[in-house]
Amino acid sequence: MRFVDIIEKKKTGHALTKAEIAYWINGYVNGTIPDYQVSALCMAIYFQGMDDQEIAWLCEAMLYSGDVMDLSKINGHKADKHSTGGVGDKTSLALAPMVAACGGKVAKMSGRGLGHTGGTLDKIESISGFHVSQSEEKFVRQVNEIHLALIGQTQSLVPADKLLYALRDVTATVNSIPLIASSIMSKKLAAGSDTILLDVKFGEGAFMPTPQDAEALAKTMIRIGRHFGKDTRAMISDMNQPLGNAIGNALELKEAIATLQGKGPEDFTTLCLEAGSIMLMQSELADTMDQAKTLLQKSIDSGSALDKLKAMCAYQGGDVTQIEDVSRLPQAKQVVAMRAKTEGYVKELHALQLGNLAMRLGAGRQKKTDTIDHSVGIVLNKKAGDLVHQGDVLAYIHTNHDLDESWIQDFHQAYAFAAKKVEKKPLIEKIIESS
Amino acid sequence: MRFVDIIEKKKTGHALTKAEIAYWINGYVNGTIPDYQVSALCMAIYFQGMDDQEIAWLCEAMLYSGDVMDLSKINGHKADKHSTGGVGDKTSLALAPMVAACGGKVAKMSGRGLGHTGGTLDKIESISGFHVSQSEEKFVRQVNEIHLALIGQTQSLVPADKLLYALRDVTATVNSIPLIASSIMSKKLAAGSDTILLDVKFGEGAFMPTPQDAEALAKTMIRIGRHFGKDTRAMISDMNQPLGNAIGNALELKEAIATLQGKGPEDFTTLCLEAGSIMLMQSELADTMDQAKTLLQKSIDSGSALDKLKAMCAYQGGDVTQIEDVSRLPQAKQVVAMRAKTEGYVKELHALQLGNLAMRLGAGRQKKTDTIDHSVGIVLNKKAGDLVHQGDVLAYIHTNHDLDESWIQDFHQAYAFAAKKVEKKPLIEKIIESS
Repeated sequence: MRFVDIIEKKKTGHALTKAEIAYWINGYVNGTIPDYQVSALCMAIYFQGMDDQEIAWLCEAMLYSGDVMDLSKINGHKADKHSTGGVGDKTSLALAPMVAACGGKVAKMSGRGLGHTGGTLDKIESISGFHVSQSEEKFVRQVNEIHLALIGQTQSLVPADKLLYALRDVTATVNSIPLIASSIMSKKLAAGSDTILLDVKFGEGAFMPTPQDAEALAKTMIRIGRHFGKDTRAMISDMNQPLGNAIGNALELKEAIATLQGKGPEDFTTLCLEAGSIMLMQSELADTMDQAKTLLQKSIDSGSALDKLKAMCAYQGGDVTQIEDVSRLPQAKQVVAMRAKTEGYVKELHALQLGNLAMRLGAGRQKKTDTIDHSVGIVLNKKAGDLVHQGDVLAYIHTNHDLDESWIQDFHQAYAFAAKKVEKKPLIEKIIESS
Repeated sequence: MRFVDIIEKKKTGHALTKAEIAYWINGYVNGTIPDYQVSALCMAIYFQGMDDQEIAWLCEAMLYSGDVMDLSKINGHKADKHSTGGVGDKTSLALAPMVAACGGKVAKMSGRGLGHTGGTLDKIESISGFHVSQSEEKFVRQVNEIHLALIGQTQSLVPADKLLYALRDVTATVNSIPLIASSIMSKKLAAGSDTILLDVKFGEGAFMPTPQDAEALAKTMIRIGRHFGKDTRAMISDMNQPLGNAIGNALELKEAIATLQGKGPEDFTTLCLEAGSIMLMQSELADTMDQAKTLLQKSIDSGSALDKLKAMCAYQGGDVTQIEDVSRLPQAKQVVAMRAKTEGYVKELHALQLGNLAMRLGAGRQKKTDTIDHSVGIVLNKKAGDLVHQGDVLAYIHTNHDLDESWIQDFHQAYAFAAKKVEKKPLIEKIIESS
C-alpha cells in the first residue's frame, strides 16, 4: 500500500477502505507516514468528504490508537456530555453537579483551552488546590462515591487525535465534518461513558457557521455513537453571542455557582436544565423531559447540586470556602464599566470578538505555553435584543492592566445596534435524538 | 502574515495576492514554511484553481527563486521547445538538429527521466563520452558556433520547482493545471530562450487525459509566456500510444538518427516537421508553415540536420562514429520477437503500460538512484489502426535477461484488438498560437 495512492483515491472522490484508513492512522501514529502526506489527505477530505462507513472506521482507528478508559467498575449509567465549544461556555461546571445530584454518574474528562478563553479545566482551576490529574482507580472510586469527577484527559487517550488536531490547526483543515466528528467522538468513546450528549454550537464563535451545518455535524456524530452502541443525542445551540454573561475563568466559575444557587442568567440556566434533562433521560432516571426538569430544578432549590460541586472540590483538593464565598476566588485589580455611546437595541454581540478581547486581557492562551490569568475577563450587562440607552453599562471589564485605546475600540466594535426592536433568538435551536 | 491564513484563503476559493504567493515560495525555499503546510495548499489549489494573475505571480516567484540563464550573448533568436512528456518521446534529439540546420539557435536544457523511460539526457548519453554538464560560457559559445547544444539543467535553476515537484509527487498534487503550468514555465523562462514551443500531450501516457485538458494547460502556459513577453505557442498531441516505434534510450536515439536520415516512422517525422516549422516561424526564419516545412525537409535530404547532431556530439565529447554506425551504440544481448495471438485491427496500444514494461527491462528508473540500461527497450512493429494476423510480430524486445511470464502476459495486455477496421487518429490534434 502506498499512501500517495490513498490520497489520490480520496482526491478523486472515492471512499477509502477500512484497511486504508487503518494504514493511515497507524502509520501516522508510528511515524512512518509523514505530516505532509497527512495534511494533503485532510485537505482532500475537506473537499470530498467521507461517507458514514469511512467516518466510523476513522473514528475506530483513532479510538484504538491509544488507551480506552474502563469505567465498568462504576455502578449504573455513566453519562457524558460534550460541547463543541464557544465563548462563555461554562456548562459542565453547573450541569455536571446538577445531574449528579439527581442520581446521574458523571465521570468527566475535559480539556484546556487554546484561543479565546480557557477550557473547563482552566475554569475549575480558579479554585486554589483543585487538581485535575488523577489515577483511573481514584477517578472510578470518586464517581462511585459522589457521582461526579472532573479530570484532565490523560496523554495516553487517542494519541492519533493529538497529532491530527495539531496538524489540522496549522493547515486550515479544522472545519471538515468527518474530521471534527471523528476527533470528538474518538475522545468521547475513549472516555468510556455509556451515553453521550453533544452540544453542537453554531454561529460565529463556533466551528459550524449555521444551524444546518451544526445539525449535519450532530447527526454524523450520532451515527458514529450508534455504530459503537452508545446512546448519543445532541442539542443544536446558538453561539452567535456568548453563553451567559461571564467570559473568563473565575468569572465563569462564579456564574456557574450562581446558577447552582438559582441566580444564574436565564439563557445559561435554560441550557443546563435542557441538557441535564436529556442526560437524566439517557441515564433512565426520568421518564419525561418535564419530570427530569423538575428533578433538576429541585437540585438547585434544595442546594443539593451546589453540594455536589463542593463535594467534588473537596475530593480533588480544592478550597471549598472559595465556592461558599466567591469573593475568595481570584479577583482582578480593576473593574471598568464600558458604557454605550449610542441608543438602540443590541442587534449583534460578536462572540468571537469578545472571546479574543478576553484573551487579550489574559483569560486565554495564544500559544500552548502561555499561562492563564484566572481573575480577568468580561461580564456582559446587555445582550442581543436588549434596549440600551446612551451611558448604560454594556459590560464590566475585569482587568489587571489599564485598558488601551485599541482594546476599547475593538470592544465597541463587538456590538451592533438597531433602532427597531430586535427579537431575542432562542438559545436552543433543536434537540436531536436520532440521525 | 500567517501561512495557515493563506491556505484558508485558497481553500475557500479566493485569489491570493502577489505578496502572499511570494511569501509562500520564498518561505518554502528558505525553509521557514514546512512541507505539511505547502502540501495542504497544493491540494487546495488542485480543488480551487488559480486565476491567470495568480499563476503568473507563482511562476515569477518560482523563476526568481534561483538563477536565470543569460543567453544574450548568443546572436539571434533562441528557440526552445518543451514536451510535457510521454512514452517514446525522443523529439528533441531529431528536432533540435533540424531547426539548427535551418539557422535556428537551440540552446536546450533537458532533464533526466523518472518512471517509465529515460529523459532526453539519458537518451543522448547512449553515446559514449557525451557529457551534458557544461559551464554557461561554453554553452553560449557552442550555440553561437554550431547553433545547438543540449545540456542538463543546473541545480541553481528554479530550486522552488525541485522542492515543490518532489512534494507534489508524493502528495497526489501533480495534476493541477496552475501547478504544472508554473512548474514548466518557470523552468523554460529560467532557461533564457526567446521563444517557447510547448508540445502538450494528452492521453493515458500523459499528465492530461483529454485533448480539452491539454488545451487548457497549453493556453495557461501561453498566457504565462506572454505575461513575460515571450512568443509562446503550443501543439496538442496524442499520447495514447507511444510516439514513433522505439521505447528505450539507445533505441530511441537510433530512431532519431533514422529520422534525420529520412527513414523515421511517419508519425514521429510528421511531429518533428510540424514542431520545427513552428520554431522556424517563431525564429523569423520562415514566413509560412509550408516554407518552413520545405526548409526542414531539405535539412534531412541534404544531410545537414544529421551533421548538426554529429557536430553537437563532437563538441560535447561524444563518439561520433556511433552516430555514423548505430550498431556501435549499446546493444542488448537478445532481441525477442513478440507475436500476435489473434487476428484483428490494433484498437489500443497502451502507452503507459508499454513505458512501464520498458522500465522493467531496465530502460527507466523506479527511483532516482537507479542506473539506466541504455541498450534495452521495445521496438513496435504494429501500431493503432494496423491490421495484424496471428503470428505477426507485434514488437521486438531488446533485453539483457530472459523475459519472464508475467512480463510477457503484461505485454499482451497492452494491446486491444477490434474485428472491424479502426481509423488511425491524427497525432497532432491542434496547433495553438494564442490563448
